[in-house]
Amino acid sequence: MSIDRSKIRWNGWGWSAHEDRLAGQEEVWSWLASELGMPALLATPARPLESIVLAPSRLTVEDRARFVQILGAERVRDDQYERAFHARGRSYHDLLHLRAGDLSTAPDAVLFPRSTDDVVATLAAAIEGRIAVVPYGGGTSVVGGVTGHRGTFKTVVSMDLSGMDRVIELDAQSMTATVEAGITGPGLEKALAANGFTLGHHPQSFEFSTLGGWIAHRGAGQGSNRYGRADDWLVGAKLATPRGVLRTGGFPASSSGPRLNDLVLGSEGIFGIITEATVRLHPLPAASDYRGYLFRDFADGIATLHDAAHSEIAVTMLRLSDPVETKFYRAFGALGKKRGVADRVAQFYLDTRGYDDKACALIAGFEGDSAAVAAARVQFDALAKKHGALALGEGQGRRWKEGRFHGPYLRDPMLDRGVGVDTLETATSWSRLETLYVAVRETLEGAIRENAPRAGARGVVTCHVSHSYRDGASLYFTYIFPRALDGEIEQWRTIKKAASDAIVANGGTISHHHGIGEDHLPWMAAEKGSLGIDVLRAVKMALDPNGILNPGKLIPD
Amino acid sequence: MSIDRSKIRWNGWGWSAHEDRLAGQEEVWSWLASELGMPALLATPARPLESIVLAPSRLTVEDRARFVQILGAERVRDDQYERAFHARGRSYHDLLHLRAGDLSTAPDAVLFPRSTDDVVATLAAAIEGRIAVVPYGGGTSVVGGVTGHRGTFKTVVSMDLSGMDRVIELDAQSMTATVEAGITGPGLEKALAANGFTLGHHPQSFEFSTLGGWIAHRGAGQGSNRYGRADDWLVGAKLATPRGVLRTGGFPASSSGPRLNDLVLGSEGIFGIITEATVRLHPLPAASDYRGYLFRDFADGIATLHDAAHSEIAVTMLRLSDPVETKFYRAFGALGKKRGVADRVAQFYLDTRGYDDKACALIAGFEGDSAAVAAARVQFDALAKKHGALALGEGQGRRWKEGRFHGPYLRDPMLDRGVGVDTLETATSWSRLETLYVAVRETLEGAIRENAPRAGARGVVTCHVSHSYRDGASLYFTYIFPRALDGEIEQWRTIKKAASDAIVANGGTISHHHGIGEDHLPWMAAEKGSLGIDVLRAVKMALDPNGILNPGKLIPD
Repeated sequence: MSIDRSKIRWNGWGWSAHEDRLAGQEEVWSWLASELGMPALLATPARPLESIVLAPSRLTVEDRARFVQILGAERVRDDQYERAFHARGRSYHDLLHLRAGDLSTAPDAVLFPRSTDDVVATLAAAIEGRIAVVPYGGGTSVVGGVTGHRGTFKTVVSMDLSGMDRVIELDAQSMTATVEAGITGPGLEKALAANGFTLGHHPQSFEFSTLGGWIAHRGAGQGSNRYGRADDWLVGAKLATPRGVLRTGGFPASSSGPRLNDLVLGSEGIFGIITEATVRLHPLPAASDYRGYLFRDFADGIATLHDAAHSEIAVTMLRLSDPVETKFYRAFGALGKKRGVADRVAQFYLDTRGYDDKACALIAGFEGDSAAVAAARVQFDALAKKHGALALGEGQGRRWKEGRFHGPYLRDPMLDRGVGVDTLETATSWSRLETLYVAVRETLEGAIRENAPRAGARGVVTCHVSHSYRDGASLYFTYIFPRALDGEIEQWRTIKKAASDAIVANGGTISHHHGIGEDHLPWMAAEKGSLGIDVLRAVKMALDPNGILNPGKLIPD
Repeated sequence: MSIDRSKIRWNGWGWSAHEDRLAGQEEVWSWLASELGMPALLATPARPLESIVLAPSRLTVEDRARFVQILGAERVRDDQYERAFHARGRSYHDLLHLRAGDLSTAPDAVLFPRSTDDVVATLAAAIEGRIAVVPYGGGTSVVGGVTGHRGTFKTVVSMDLSGMDRVIELDAQSMTATVEAGITGPGLEKALAANGFTLGHHPQSFEFSTLGGWIAHRGAGQGSNRYGRADDWLVGAKLATPRGVLRTGGFPASSSGPRLNDLVLGSEGIFGIITEATVRLHPLPAASDYRGYLFRDFADGIATLHDAAHSEIAVTMLRLSDPVETKFYRAFGALGKKRGVADRVAQFYLDTRGYDDKACALIAGFEGDSAAVAAARVQFDALAKKHGALALGEGQGRRWKEGRFHGPYLRDPMLDRGVGVDTLETATSWSRLETLYVAVRETLEGAIRENAPRAGARGVVTCHVSHSYRDGASLYFTYIFPRALDGEIEQWRTIKKAASDAIVANGGTISHHHGIGEDHLPWMAAEKGSLGIDVLRAVKMALDPNGILNPGKLIPD
């Protein structure tokens, strides 16, 4: 297997060995407590795995033998760690369950296929045994996409694709690669870089998430302006379904009826298991330039994104923080550092120029050949300054890039201190963007206040625009709040529902790049229409008539 | 209605008033005869409509009254002209039927709805009357997409969307427009230009084809490198199905499961009738630069396209003719013109530099703001010259652009002279492109020879690459051949089958931008797989359970 599951946290984010820089910094925690309107933060450690008794596996001896016959004994696992590890994804909601020791969704076994044939044979065995199958890539879903639900079946297994991580073919002339779906971000990029190529797909989960997962939830990486979303870079897919293998796409473009790639993209494991994909590559960029800007307010920043999207400027990434996010991360970064004369002079300069507490930071990224990067940077610089931006230089960009995958690691120490932190994201047209932003922000702030553990407690709601398009942009909210320890799942659900209702009511999509899973299920009908849901049900019935695949996700059963 | 059907040819291409410049030029015809290895070309005039007796309409009095009640008497037409006009699309195969007076596929009536409500009500009435409905936009299909087949029903009506051509909303900030689907290319571009915008979708059928048709067959315009294919510019669609209205998309991007836009794109009227669409716009380009280049051979030209697709150069269009097309159009254009000293000097210059009969012409187009166009042109110029290109200047580009919609008009005079002319197109990866090109060319040449009306007769097979992508490119073949007048439909079918088999066998898609219709139906299973066809059938069943929509198209009944 490409990735050693035992070195990853089963109930938190990422490498177990990752150093927690915040844990000991009491100054940080007292500052955060005051930001949240709390007198103090309580210690709320996670329950250790050793103290949790898992329900015995329901897998019958016959079914187990059948899986072992197909995969080998090593690849049918039902030890406590593997079952716990595969019980859920890694959303805030998931972690509440896992940290509390609720492993009711732990699969009865975890299967590790090594080929499409393995997957097809395993699915046939699952049908025979009437066993639900939950496809599992990196397990980094933050929408309940891999929760081990049994649906109407007695038994459920997790199908972990991490043993399928080979590059099958690299077509340098066509700049495409055909790769097994279980490969992780680093594994894929390393193999491609050795040949001078990159896919350029860098979601925040990059270290652990897989090619198959990116396709299954129709994801977007941080540099999608240049490298495209999964929708853009997928040439073709191999989907192992209970009715056999479906190969989709395979052409640079086609008008041969509906594009079946688009039923694989976003299918979240309910139609089949993605075992291979052919993807469009880029040459490794010769130049890369990331830098920071500061705007006087959010509107100036958004106007810049809007104009850039309608220009010919070749940007790789534009990431604009709202005033709260800008202020919060600046304060967070300054904690524990002594403010010197230079800092005070800089602050004075900013204040007198009008970059006060409404100011917004933007990180702009440019990749490609040196001339193109230089040209784009100059053009963008002029545009940003037209909208009143102050250029902050490359230091900001470098720091952002170095820390681009570290955000999720901050969550676990917060969860240890009674603090909740969740994210949600959406996208809408430029003309609706501000209304949607205000509505979701106010809804989140209100819902957090109303569901806080004590009067006067409040949340910190930050937002950034991370993806912009010709016709609109995404909004990414992070909300940090004091947990109501006597009913934290209900608290989460109430806040989530309020925000999701506000998204739908204001013309936003229920997800821009996280997916649906089980968490967004209640809003799918509003987005797709009842007829649209009927269509998805019909596709499900055509490919998985027994309904064994990933019960309870994407569409109502 | 936006377009007066009585001014368009019912059995040929385009405006009836279009001047036929070739008809009288006997020199052209004797040259063409010798190119085709024929001693002479025979006069093969089309049968006039007055001499054709149409089968009486099978529409019952009750059903007719029901349609009249919904649409008004003016909008339910069963006169001979309308029925003949809507009998078929405008492929070579269609014209063989129409010109011979075979109107067996004429619909029993033609309906002209004016709103989505009209369409929904009409579909309900059709279900009640058990009447097949063939959606009809501009009727320019070249794959049998609008043939008036009844399927298993007794009656068939054509649903002509030309009465639905309004721009409903223009969102300048988001650069999108919501438009009724029956609008034609010129109607749409005129309305958008008045507001400073363009969709930039210019297929060769632009004068007559419609927004709905472009989406329904998943088309691509000539400038798709800049403006995108229908796949790229469609934000959302309104699809009137027999089970009600399905709205798809509507967001700049989303990860909310499979993208249902992609079931509308390429649906060819079998799932529902596209009544409205929201599309992504561009500002009207400030600058436009089209110019010609000449390469020593096809491989040099293809290498240039390949390198351009992998570069950062912002091209709008690159269109490379193979040696036969280059030579044929040069000879065609030179006919009737006196060769002066300058021409002979130019020819001598070309010959000595190695641009002989293997030479290939390329038209490169650049649109956008002035600086971007200038930069792209300079970059492309350098790239082309690196591959040995000779710059031919703007005259070539201007002439191509002026004549960009005129090609199809040349077909009717050829059909009047016993000459057949058809086109087919495909796309594949760069690494397979040359093999596919050679295979299809040789197959077409062989099939034409083997099915020629006399020994020694042969075809002219020309090809160009009109669309290039990061991972591959399209091939567009035009083949001109002497008709076997005693079995011309069988001759066409034999040649078409041979070429299509060669396409599929060599990794090409059965259609890059023409669509499937009935002509490409036999190759759909090879491209989509039997499971893929099952999926499409399931979607059909979910939206059109009675199967009234466009029988015999896209998927086997």
